[in-house]
Amino acid sequence: MSFKFFLATKNPGKIREIKEILKNFDCTILLPDIANFPPETGKTFQENALIKASFVARIYPGTYVAGEDSGLVVPALNGMPGVLSSRFAGQDADDGKNIEKLLKYCRHLKDRSAYFICVIALIEPSGTCRFFEGRLYGKIAQKPAGSNGFGYDPVFEIPEYGKTVAQLTIEEKNKISHRAKAFLQLAEYLKMAV
Amino acid sequence: MSFKFFLATKNPGKIREIKEILKNFDCTILLPDIANFPPETGKTFQENALIKASFVARIYPGTYVAGEDSGLVVPALNGMPGVLSSRFAGQDADDGKNIEKLLKYCRHLKDRSAYFICVIALIEPSGTCRFFEGRLYGKIAQKPAGSNGFGYDPVFEIPEYGKTVAQLTIEEKNKISHRAKAFLQLAEYLKMAV
Repeated sequence: MSFKFFLATKNPGKIREIKEILKNFDCTILLPDIANFPPETGKTFQENALIKASFVARIYPGTYVAGEDSGLVVPALNGMPGVLSSRFAGQDADDGKNIEKLLKYCRHLKDRSAYFICVIALIEPSGTCRFFEGRLYGKIAQKPAGSNGFGYDPVFEIPEYGKTVAQLTIEEKNKISHRAKAFLQLAEYLKMAV
Repeated sequence: MSFKFFLATKNPGKIREIKEILKNFDCTILLPDIANFPPETGKTFQENALIKASFVARIYPGTYVAGEDSGLVVPALNGMPGVLSSRFAGQDADDGKNIEKLLKYCRHLKDRSAYFICVIALIEPSGTCRFFEGRLYGKIAQKPAGSNGFGYDPVFEIPEYGKTVAQLTIEEKNKISHRAKAFLQLAEYLKMAV
């Protein structure tokens, strides 16, 4: 069954990745025509995803809207960087600075286990909200490796592959990633619901 | 300045209390005409407040909508009962059963400090979301006392008063309560914004 939904993001990297993840579904991803999203003030990934979805849902009544939030969680760092993943090294942070700060924090850790998480908040035409979640488990590498992907990919190691996520091809990444797991669940749901 | 907003709740106790809190403002509290809210599946008070607000916001475009979630937090119990406050003793829980379970859990605690928290998610006509929060600090009493209020009021002791919240008059409670603090902030904001 074909379906369509608004994707509440302006991040070109995410849009590209999600289109690739859903390429085998008969679906249309609509992008909202907005200048800026409200600040991501949420305390959880769920809240931030919901803030984005809720904002777009008001502008386009009668539609399905998916808001997405994702990040890296290191349990031995009390869950950091968590919802602050993209701003870990401050408001002007870039991937390089965030990675540098993360490696510094991890220097003395015995347990470098970590996971990527992606949470989707789906707002339906009725206003009802549902959450979908995907995780990718791995560990923080000693130093960056690889140049694919974005964010913390160069220091996120998948023990089964002996590689970081940035050393995987986009096809390999999309088979196992947190974002793929969450969006495939969303697509399976929308296929039935719409 | 006069203002109006939708209050995303069906709880008669909360509606009564909030009307009383805002009686000195020139405001109209609108109640949504809906049968049921979506399930409160949030991991935080913010999420649950946002789920309720978001649901009503979709039904009434162009309005201000306030969703509210509140509960009791006992730090020495890792934050329990938290978002599960009204369902602490299970899905069929009532105030009596919840209080009984709480007192049992607190029996061996040295630190019985606790706070009530109220979080409001306000969705504006544009879709932007803002949060307001109020807290009331106290401690869990050894046994219930008083018959005013509702929920955990009979076992929530305010040391400065030497009384539980259920022993306060509604006027006394509304001067100090978590819900009053949150809704007064909301009202001050709406007075300027609307």
